[in-house]
Amino acid sequence: MTTNADDVLRALRRTRQIRDFRPDPIPDNVLEDVLDVARWTGSAMNRQPWTFVVVRDPKRRARLAELAPQAGHVAKAAAVIAIVMTGEDADQDSYDEGRVAERILIAASALGLGAGIGWARKSNWPAIAEFLGIPAPKFVRTFVSLGYPSDAAARPKSAPGSARKPLDELVRHERFA
Amino acid sequence: MTTNADDVLRALRRTRQIRDFRPDPIPDNVLEDVLDVARWTGSAMNRQPWTFVVVRDPKRRARLAELAPQAGHVAKAAAVIAIVMTGEDADQDSYDEGRVAERILIAASALGLGAGIGWARKSNWPAIAEFLGIPAPKFVRTFVSLGYPSDAAARPKSAPGSARKPLDELVRHERFA
Repeated sequence: MTTNADDVLRALRRTRQIRDFRPDPIPDNVLEDVLDVARWTGSAMNRQPWTFVVVRDPKRRARLAELAPQAGHVAKAAAVIAIVMTGEDADQDSYDEGRVAERILIAASALGLGAGIGWARKSNWPAIAEFLGIPAPKFVRTFVSLGYPSDAAARPKSAPGSARKPLDELVRHERFA
Repeated sequence: MTTNADDVLRALRRTRQIRDFRPDPIPDNVLEDVLDVARWTGSAMNRQPWTFVVVRDPKRRARLAELAPQAGHVAKAAAVIAIVMTGEDADQDSYDEGRVAERILIAASALGLGAGIGWARKSNWPAIAEFLGIPAPKFVRTFVSLGYPSDAAARPKSAPGSARKPLDELVRHERFA
């Protein structure tokens, strides 16, 4: 039994998407802590099917926001982690990509950063890959925006649509039905 | 900046797959803590595309191990969480499934439990769905085995294949290449 279980559970419960950031930069050692947590993510057959492209340059982030309008928050972030996946197995890639994205969110939150996941539409993947210099079949779908939350974003709120189903609706015992 | 960042980062680094368990049962409140962390997982459009079937009955776990031989550790666990997904969008399901599985692993580890992810092959999904009473198009691919780690499993080791690529191989700046 770990002594800090409550701290960890609290951090997990507190982790949520942040998409509005202060302009303050992220210290290198903090960003490295986030990437090191990502590095230790488990994956099917320990493939580690990812590479992380860190984009900090504001002009390049602005261009990414144009190329991936669904992830427009990358323009406002202090840094963006583009998760490059292998493109070798769609199901395993998506699953492992979800695992690593989740760990990045949790690590960022523990470090006082905000993090927001943005997905690029598949039709935009080729242009994004070209811009980032990524050879096929590798691709980027997930952009994780990182930065210190803006005052508005830091204020806890129950935004519509952010609620969760109650446990007794989500959990069944022994059988689904 | 949270004061317990180091504790959380340590918990994240320490989280690893456990597939061998002591027979001790898991107290209800501990299992509920794990499920509550799972409940708060983010998902695309906040779909929350999951239901959790908790299987504790030893005979039913033994049967699941037959139906999903790739997840044979379910027979030795104290409890198994079968993650039921919607089957409505393969990519989003896989991604969100990875996110929720990762949070279950981390929460279990923080609570002193071991957890191991097992995947059922797609050809086995129909039989598993029938056994668990799951209506199509919903399906179960992921079984998370939970229990207190056996002495052998609790011993930290660097098993072959459990290593991770170094950060300078995984991280690029501004461009992939």
